[in-house]
Amino acid sequence: MPRFALTIEYDGGPFVGWQRQANGISIQQRLEEAVLAIDGVQRVVHGAGRTDAGVHALGQVAHVDLTRDWRVDRLRDALNAHLRPDPIAVLTARAVAEDFEARFSAKMRHYRYLIFNRRAPPALARGRVWHVKRPLDAEAMHAAAQTLIGKFDFSTYRASECQARSPIRTLERLDVTRRGDEIEILASAPSFLHHQVRSLVGSLEHVGSGKWPVEEPRRALEARSRARCGLVAPAQGLYLIAVDY
Amino acid sequence: MPRFALTIEYDGGPFVGWQRQANGISIQQRLEEAVLAIDGVQRVVHGAGRTDAGVHALGQVAHVDLTRDWRVDRLRDALNAHLRPDPIAVLTARAVAEDFEARFSAKMRHYRYLIFNRRAPPALARGRVWHVKRPLDAEAMHAAAQTLIGKFDFSTYRASECQARSPIRTLERLDVTRRGDEIEILASAPSFLHHQVRSLVGSLEHVGSGKWPVEEPRRALEARSRARCGLVAPAQGLYLIAVDY
Repeated sequence: MPRFALTIEYDGGPFVGWQRQANGISIQQRLEEAVLAIDGVQRVVHGAGRTDAGVHALGQVAHVDLTRDWRVDRLRDALNAHLRPDPIAVLTARAVAEDFEARFSAKMRHYRYLIFNRRAPPALARGRVWHVKRPLDAEAMHAAAQTLIGKFDFSTYRASECQARSPIRTLERLDVTRRGDEIEILASAPSFLHHQVRSLVGSLEHVGSGKWPVEEPRRALEARSRARCGLVAPAQGLYLIAVDY
Repeated sequence: MPRFALTIEYDGGPFVGWQRQANGISIQQRLEEAVLAIDGVQRVVHGAGRTDAGVHALGQVAHVDLTRDWRVDRLRDALNAHLRPDPIAVLTARAVAEDFEARFSAKMRHYRYLIFNRRAPPALARGRVWHVKRPLDAEAMHAAAQTLIGKFDFSTYRASECQARSPIRTLERLDVTRRGDEIEILASAPSFLHHQVRSLVGSLEHVGSGKWPVEEPRRALEARSRARCGLVAPAQGLYLIAVDY
């Protein structure tokens, strides 16, 4: 059976998250319905990252096995026709080897987090950013972020319900940049713990606002205690932007 | 009575446009309701540009007279509190001279138009861009745009219902730039005719797709005939980004 990898963009706002759940519509469910419509068979669409409710994607990757071969342009267009009117779009489809696994073959995952840092609420960016009214010092946030780069036990920055066997992760990149009222945080790692990016961002926000000294996120990391984590930043500012294979 | 100028951001999607109308909620109406709530008096909020239904703003400017003086930060915050939950945000308020007129004192208006140029539909940018599937040549569009810079009779690029006395306008800037899948068109002029930017963009799209030669938008301009205009680009891709005084 031919296997295909899909690159997918979505607005996470209306969904319960990537993964199929009993309590609402997931992105995975809508993709599987689209696959059923064009392939005639109920298939599992396997995603690289199980984004939470409200989290967006510019480049989620998933794989699926189909009954027959498809021209990849036609496959993309056919899936998009069946995904309407939901805010989910297949950007590309490509044929992959039958041992390709969107989740397990991934070498690196890249997330973006957007903070909207001004007094006035976002009108156009609503639901796409975390609105923080008090002025944040992005340079201090970036300095603190650099102390978290490397291979560590990230228990502090991990959801209590995280199911990963090990809390050890290697953070390759955590860059904080201000562009006008917008603060962008780019995070890259081979894999992340549940809520890791949002926990890191919430703690960096404490540095930016002056509530925490620049050294605190690193000290909290070393404490390996969830109790030392700052707040968990809201889902709506998070984007899965790319997965490398 | 103290007069204030407001800089306003909004998502035009849910509204019938800037101007008060009987058939739905306008941005002007919501602002006037917010002013009534804080000032106790029904006031007219005068905008620099009467954006159409669906058109967005990053920097609309309006003026309003209030009964008492306000600290401008408090005025902005109070109006925003009363504008919730609508996607309208007052970015800044400032005290202005009593002869300041948002519309008539304006020296230059700046609009942005966004085209999303890829096969897959926009998921995150839905309602914020014009989705054009066929590949567009942005360089050809830019070349055609440059032939429209200057002071001309823009009857070709003017809505039949336009109420301006004269069709003569001075187009100062019309730049077309591609960034990945997004084509941005920046248009600046002291003032625009009704549907002028959207009519220009619709005609440039014909150049980008190869339907029209690069020379056609200028020939159409010289014909001074609405029949020679290409299609009118949809409202949802248009943003009033700034007004200079």
